[in-house]
Amino acid sequence: MAKRAIKMLGFDVFGTVVDWYSSVIAEGESLAQNNGIDGVDWGAFTLAWRGRYGPSMQPIIEGERPWVRLDVLHYESLLATLDEFGIDQLTDAQINDFNRAWHRLNPWPDSVAGLTRLKQRFILATVSNGNIELMVNMAKRAGLPWDVVLGAEPTKQYKPHPETYLGSAEIMGLAPEDCMMVAAHTGDLDAARSLGFSTAYVHRPDEFGPEQHIDMPDPSAYDIVVTDFEKLAEQLGC
Amino acid sequence: MAKRAIKMLGFDVFGTVVDWYSSVIAEGESLAQNNGIDGVDWGAFTLAWRGRYGPSMQPIIEGERPWVRLDVLHYESLLATLDEFGIDQLTDAQINDFNRAWHRLNPWPDSVAGLTRLKQRFILATVSNGNIELMVNMAKRAGLPWDVVLGAEPTKQYKPHPETYLGSAEIMGLAPEDCMMVAAHTGDLDAARSLGFSTAYVHRPDEFGPEQHIDMPDPSAYDIVVTDFEKLAEQLGC
Repeated sequence: MAKRAIKMLGFDVFGTVVDWYSSVIAEGESLAQNNGIDGVDWGAFTLAWRGRYGPSMQPIIEGERPWVRLDVLHYESLLATLDEFGIDQLTDAQINDFNRAWHRLNPWPDSVAGLTRLKQRFILATVSNGNIELMVNMAKRAGLPWDVVLGAEPTKQYKPHPETYLGSAEIMGLAPEDCMMVAAHTGDLDAARSLGFSTAYVHRPDEFGPEQHIDMPDPSAYDIVVTDFEKLAEQLGC
Repeated sequence: MAKRAIKMLGFDVFGTVVDWYSSVIAEGESLAQNNGIDGVDWGAFTLAWRGRYGPSMQPIIEGERPWVRLDVLHYESLLATLDEFGIDQLTDAQINDFNRAWHRLNPWPDSVAGLTRLKQRFILATVSNGNIELMVNMAKRAGLPWDVVLGAEPTKQYKPHPETYLGSAEIMGLAPEDCMMVAAHTGDLDAARSLGFSTAYVHRPDEFGPEQHIDMPDPSAYDIVVTDFEKLAEQLGC
């Protein structure tokens, strides 16, 4: 029997649509230059900051902490990372602005063109852990043509908790079978697939910088495996 | 002292951006023609259905009923209106589809062009009582270029309750003073203004059809008073 027609594409955003690694490094380097901060490896700093992302959500996913926006978790992780790297000369305003580097991430070169094609045929939703303000500011700056911001804030739960996926579909009056999750991360796709979503893996080998190699997954594990959003649009007939 | 710069425009949608009156009439007439329903005045039907809108939200605003999506309230009101007009030959599927007429409302002729201009300078948010699915389906069909759907569903409260306005601003990390409410309804604007929002009144004299006259309000009551969205864009320097 033919698969049900997909009505909505739900996108992971950090790493899948935007390049957080190079974007945050550039913000750190600029901050360092403007404030006479020397000797910091901003690649290492960025990976350390991002390294706290998964653990920061875990108490919420496990029900040990009430839901808070990702901006709050990013801020807590930033304070810890600044401390780890011995950076103590920034003002509160500078720290707050640096935290909003995540609102100003640059898209991968194919993201805007691919999404624009996909938008003609599908509802394009963010199913990201980023909060609504972050997603909207990023989209406005980068030209990402979302139809709707779903994911963590509307569902008050972080991926890979099932509620983030199921609640995002439900808000749009859709069943999981009406939706395809698009991500560069197998864990995200595996969680969505186990709930009935179709899945598209987009390979982003430079997500964590040049020193971390990311293998292509087994292509039979997902409905679509591609290397960019233009190819995703082609495969989906856009 | 100069006013703070406006960052976000929050829009009322039903009547302000889209013409529910003529759109719902057209859906009713089409339904009648396809099902041999004669003798119904669809203008009167549409006004009766919409007439139940305010009362349907009142128990929620007053805390007597938990929040439910507007689709649910529209459905309850539709059943009552069908009964009032003696229409009993529709199937459940037809009633459900007719209820979604509110997802398919047509924009006023100036809406898309005006919003497209305004989007260059401001965050465009719906601050409507419509639920997210309704707003997204409407926008997708009509080409309304929203940046974000706020209002009743994200805040779980209906206008004119203060939480709908304040919560919408707060989700975007904004103070009321950063926001301007845009509406064709003085009650909506008065509620927003009392909370610190700037206000723009857009005159839509045909909202309730040709037989109901709507007076222009006292222009000193609002920051901007205009007759369409192109003029709003002009006044806001877009």
